[in-house]
Amino acid sequence: MRHFDQQLDELRSRLLEMSGLVESSIYRSVVALTEKDEQQAMQALQSESRINQMEIEIDDLATGLLALEQPVATDLRFITAAIKINNDLERMGDHAVNIAERALSLIHEPVVKPLVDIPLLASMVESMVRQSLDAFVKKDSSLARTVLTSDDGVDELRDSIYDELIIYMEKDATTIRQCLDLIFVARNLERIADHSTNIAEDVVFLVEGVDVRHHAEARK
Amino acid sequence: MRHFDQQLDELRSRLLEMSGLVESSIYRSVVALTEKDEQQAMQALQSESRINQMEIEIDDLATGLLALEQPVATDLRFITAAIKINNDLERMGDHAVNIAERALSLIHEPVVKPLVDIPLLASMVESMVRQSLDAFVKKDSSLARTVLTSDDGVDELRDSIYDELIIYMEKDATTIRQCLDLIFVARNLERIADHSTNIAEDVVFLVEGVDVRHHAEARK
Repeated sequence: MRHFDQQLDELRSRLLEMSGLVESSIYRSVVALTEKDEQQAMQALQSESRINQMEIEIDDLATGLLALEQPVATDLRFITAAIKINNDLERMGDHAVNIAERALSLIHEPVVKPLVDIPLLASMVESMVRQSLDAFVKKDSSLARTVLTSDDGVDELRDSIYDELIIYMEKDATTIRQCLDLIFVARNLERIADHSTNIAEDVVFLVEGVDVRHHAEARK
Repeated sequence: MRHFDQQLDELRSRLLEMSGLVESSIYRSVVALTEKDEQQAMQALQSESRINQMEIEIDDLATGLLALEQPVATDLRFITAAIKINNDLERMGDHAVNIAERALSLIHEPVVKPLVDIPLLASMVESMVRQSLDAFVKKDSSLARTVLTSDDGVDELRDSIYDELIIYMEKDATTIRQCLDLIFVARNLERIADHSTNIAEDVVFLVEGVDVRHHAEARK
């Protein structure tokens, strides 16, 4: 195996390690919220610095490959996709931290209602995250396109969660702070889904050479 | 002038054009909100597709330079910074669109109060955007560091805006939807400031070779 191929493998496996950390952080933050589990929230918060450190290391690795190996064609596309995916993963990690913070703020509050549809939204989003990374690893652009089509469902569910929470707030002013926390949780989940969509778009571009950003018709 | 230098110049000037569009879109969205000016909101919404198109063109230009010219050292750093800044600008444009949409939703509502401190927050954020781009163009890392230090003030003001709006909501349930729109506006402004911070971090790295992401101590 060429030294360069080994380094591409290294880049791929570092990204997988990063995505594992981020997925676990998202999962823990949601469990912290739904189970009122303080320990899971703390673990999600603690993984932030490791994720940040990995982002820098992966960036250095990718930029080093660009500089030293001067790759072309597919390899170049792979490395630029890796730089973008790395950035999306780090931001997903930030959203998981935000969710964990909201979970902590809600931990001693009696629940308004069994969290509306937030657990359902979380499971939709978690599967988008996993599928977008699987699509990247397997270079599977049809799986990536599945992620792109899931995004509309996430937006619809988020809207219905907002509407339901607003009704609670209007009925009972004492629930306002709690409902706001939940609105921000839904918002953070939706942003994680957006980052998965970005990754899926990068995968389609990587595999097919078709740029599907901002072009709904090319996503079909 | 080398052909390659001309292309770097072209990349720089396209980014400036992009940032001009994005700054104007942010400005219009805020005026739409503060002046209840529907036309400004519509113009902010209309610039979205142009901004999206420019993002793709700039990305293609930058990736083409990486592939064909195989740059090293400073030039490589400049091009990878350009790719990231381009992405940050596009996302700022998305936030401006969100603000314009909230402005439209509020346009026929009587105002709760003269918009709390949102105009002040907007002007802080607009100056961060401008400074981060100026820092990039002039390769001025001390100006970039000014942007990094402004971010804390933005976060503090956002928090005080949230608190004030929550008090309104608790006092009068009929203001809840309107206050939520304003909370999302403040959130979008804060996210625009975050993207300016990203750009400023890229500038410090470009000029000084120091990675200041996630390292508060290196920002001094």
